[in-house]
Amino acid sequence: MRLKTLGEVGLIERIAKKIKVDKTVIRGIGEDCAVIRLSKKKLLLLTIDMLIEGVHFKAKETSPFQIGWKSLACGISDIAAMGGVAEYAVVSLGLPAKLPVEFVDGIYKGIKSLGRRFDVKIIGGDTNSSKELVIDVAVLGFVEPRRLVSRSGAKIGDIVCVTGVLGGSYKSGRHLKFVPRLKEARALVKNYRVNSMIDLSDGLSTDLNHMAKESEVGACIYKELIPISKDASSFDAALNEGEDFELLFTLPLIEARRLAAKKPNGIRLPITQIGEIIDKKMGVKIIDRFGRVKELKPKGYRHF
Amino acid sequence: MRLKTLGEVGLIERIAKKIKVDKTVIRGIGEDCAVIRLSKKKLLLLTIDMLIEGVHFKAKETSPFQIGWKSLACGISDIAAMGGVAEYAVVSLGLPAKLPVEFVDGIYKGIKSLGRRFDVKIIGGDTNSSKELVIDVAVLGFVEPRRLVSRSGAKIGDIVCVTGVLGGSYKSGRHLKFVPRLKEARALVKNYRVNSMIDLSDGLSTDLNHMAKESEVGACIYKELIPISKDASSFDAALNEGEDFELLFTLPLIEARRLAAKKPNGIRLPITQIGEIIDKKMGVKIIDRFGRVKELKPKGYRHF
Repeated sequence: MRLKTLGEVGLIERIAKKIKVDKTVIRGIGEDCAVIRLSKKKLLLLTIDMLIEGVHFKAKETSPFQIGWKSLACGISDIAAMGGVAEYAVVSLGLPAKLPVEFVDGIYKGIKSLGRRFDVKIIGGDTNSSKELVIDVAVLGFVEPRRLVSRSGAKIGDIVCVTGVLGGSYKSGRHLKFVPRLKEARALVKNYRVNSMIDLSDGLSTDLNHMAKESEVGACIYKELIPISKDASSFDAALNEGEDFELLFTLPLIEARRLAAKKPNGIRLPITQIGEIIDKKMGVKIIDRFGRVKELKPKGYRHF
Repeated sequence: MRLKTLGEVGLIERIAKKIKVDKTVIRGIGEDCAVIRLSKKKLLLLTIDMLIEGVHFKAKETSPFQIGWKSLACGISDIAAMGGVAEYAVVSLGLPAKLPVEFVDGIYKGIKSLGRRFDVKIIGGDTNSSKELVIDVAVLGFVEPRRLVSRSGAKIGDIVCVTGVLGGSYKSGRHLKFVPRLKEARALVKNYRVNSMIDLSDGLSTDLNHMAKESEVGACIYKELIPISKDASSFDAALNEGEDFELLFTLPLIEARRLAAKKPNGIRLPITQIGEIIDKKMGVKIIDRFGRVKELKPKGYRHF
């Protein structure tokens, strides 16, 4: 079978099936980050994200600064989605030998600039020659056990929320210069009982389906409530485009009310309640203002 | 300036210069692994290694099993070189969409087979479509502070040793199926006062120069003493070819004598004393059986 036929989710499921871990591994393949038990008070988070020229960016249209920035931002966003703090990163580069050294300097300027903003230390890496530019960044972080949150913890009755506004990320170039929602995520897990969280990389429709599947629940969201970016060309863009890197999270109704009444310090972004978690049997639905219910199909980014 | 002109070592120095870390970072860019202080009793090791089709292997001549095996083996070898134990790995893949799924299965068979051997758990990763096959593996391990060893600790008067035999790794295909010397490294750091260690990835001539430079010492080795593999086509192959993934290490004379008298349990490989650490002013030398001294130039693998 070709990868194209199987798709990314199918591939990950196929890989995860045959992998053996032990009880120190709290979360493994299938989550935004792997989670390892270090001690009673400390969990370790580890994530890795690859960007490839011609797939994730066009070398001629993207500045090296943006490539570097984004390569680290993806990993920090994954750590944020688990409620953690990002601390260290290692950077693996595949570089065409004819590339000017100044281009590599530019990539590192982007990495360091974002690193400084979130106090993430660059502690090592690997450099290789390659035909296409490849950059792969592993980010290491920590989280307290009671603050750990993941895509698989959504509970029936939870309110579904998103930070910020959605859509038009590619068109506006926001996907290359987004700020990971780490501070917002920390403020949320410190102040509220958040049951599940995921960062919106593949698009709301796809990531909500991921969350529902991993949590073994259903979800329904209201079309009218989805916060649309001024950059989005249509409602469908906000629903499906991806690379928004906003947080999608769920929390019990009582907590959602507290959050709506008073946002915690450190969150300036809008937070919007867009729906609720329902029984798995009901599936994942979207409801329009006339009350018409449709299945919400994952129409976001397909990797293969 | 082009990367080709600067070279890999120049590039790494250029990158390392402008990187800021903090006091939790015991070793950063320039070592085999990054080293982070977790507690008084525990240091964390993190390393990342990228393999690229057409650079590190030819897809048609290499089995997916071997690609997977090697991608993890490089990282475990790095952890070994610091005296540590490898525990977890995350795997980033760039895969051509037309690749058969069975090829990816084969890569994971190789990864899991080596993982089982050293009890390294695969806990996550990233999958992407790409033109060429790229596989990047980050390995996480731990080491006790008193057992940490690195390439930068060699002291004047130390004896220089290598495990196993050198040369012919490419020709014989050993570079794709080597067993990282983790058990040997652990037996060494547990039983002897090892001052410095490095894994031989770029070739003895190059890696000894790395070690000398990072330790701010010189070194001299004896041509007659270098253990040559039966696969090596010449003495120069043993000296320069690289990808042997044996351990090069130094320890005080008194410790070297103990080691020569009785190898610790768990080491079946030959261990050969090949020279000594000398003053930096003397440089890095090789002496033949007629007592003729030559400068030992780093003639190993150049990445750009």
